[in-house]
Amino acid sequence: MRIIVVGAGGDIGQAACKELQQRHEIVTVGRSSGDHRVDASDINAVKSLYESIGNFDAVVCCAGDATFAPLARMTQETFMVGLQQKVMAQVNLVLAGLDVISDAGSFTLTSGVLDRDPIRMGSNAATANGALAGFVKSAAIEMPRGLRINVVSPGMLDVSAARYGAWFHGHKPVSSHHVGLAYAKCVEGALTGQVVIVD
Amino acid sequence: MRIIVVGAGGDIGQAACKELQQRHEIVTVGRSSGDHRVDASDINAVKSLYESIGNFDAVVCCAGDATFAPLARMTQETFMVGLQQKVMAQVNLVLAGLDVISDAGSFTLTSGVLDRDPIRMGSNAATANGALAGFVKSAAIEMPRGLRINVVSPGMLDVSAARYGAWFHGHKPVSSHHVGLAYAKCVEGALTGQVVIVD
Repeated sequence: MRIIVVGAGGDIGQAACKELQQRHEIVTVGRSSGDHRVDASDINAVKSLYESIGNFDAVVCCAGDATFAPLARMTQETFMVGLQQKVMAQVNLVLAGLDVISDAGSFTLTSGVLDRDPIRMGSNAATANGALAGFVKSAAIEMPRGLRINVVSPGMLDVSAARYGAWFHGHKPVSSHHVGLAYAKCVEGALTGQVVIVD
Repeated sequence: MRIIVVGAGGDIGQAACKELQQRHEIVTVGRSSGDHRVDASDINAVKSLYESIGNFDAVVCCAGDATFAPLARMTQETFMVGLQQKVMAQVNLVLAGLDVISDAGSFTLTSGVLDRDPIRMGSNAATANGALAGFVKSAAIEMPRGLRINVVSPGMLDVSAARYGAWFHGHKPVSSHHVGLAYAKCVEGALTGQVVIVD
């Protein structure tokens, strides 16, 4: 398969690529690195991305920003970051891809642990994660041409613990290898409409 | 208690009011009817609303728009409707209310069935519903002063079946009385961080 991985340079993206590149051609996409660049919160930029890439069989998105701040200091502006950069951006990859992805292709999005196991300052990410779960469950029943859609929801990765561990005290780091396997299961398996938890 | 009910004129809002008004003072709010008017997708309008209302002990929001359209015809613009009018608007009621609601007060939001039992054309609402579930679960752990937050997730109401039933074939209509009870449980009980399902 020819697989587009958005956010390929991050910890999760690298875990996904490490597993998938053993058997597939990977096209890496990022905001500041990769074979192609995109700001997926703009659907027209996503359409241009797909045109420049040509044929593809799967999209894996491991990118998505949210605001980490105490609830009491969250504003409409900072809260919209997660809705636009983590929810709408990933939804854009699906909406723009529906007509151009190969038959029986798949979309695999990324959420995270915070909507089921919240932390202080995580309300914006938790909201985005829940949104993505609702989206894939519903979008799956309207997918044409045998297309599939899932979302991987990993806990904090082992390789990320040095940077983010202070926000996640008590959270058990998850194996990057297991995270990579989750993406392989979504791309190479037959699941659809699922939240694939890695913990 | 003095309870603000946003979207009091809708089917769900009327069910909530019918139950709560038996024991409490209700301040009704809507976009086109009620004691006060607000477009909650603008947090400054919400702040003005709270200033004009004065003291209050609970906020119940039964309002929130989303786009109903086939996934293949959804655009970034139409998809943002649910993120702004159903998610951000309800989150604004919380963010703007944190400092002005009474001690031990509560916020009760409204999602719906579509993130757990999807229908065609429902992906935008499903996304918003999932977002609200993630939000209340996470926001609950950061609530100051004994404040609480929950979201009621009702199926299609019996009183709404004549209008919406054609989109919900096979869905069992839920009792409006039971929906009203769910809001009472959230406002008058001690739950927090919960999705209160009515089905």
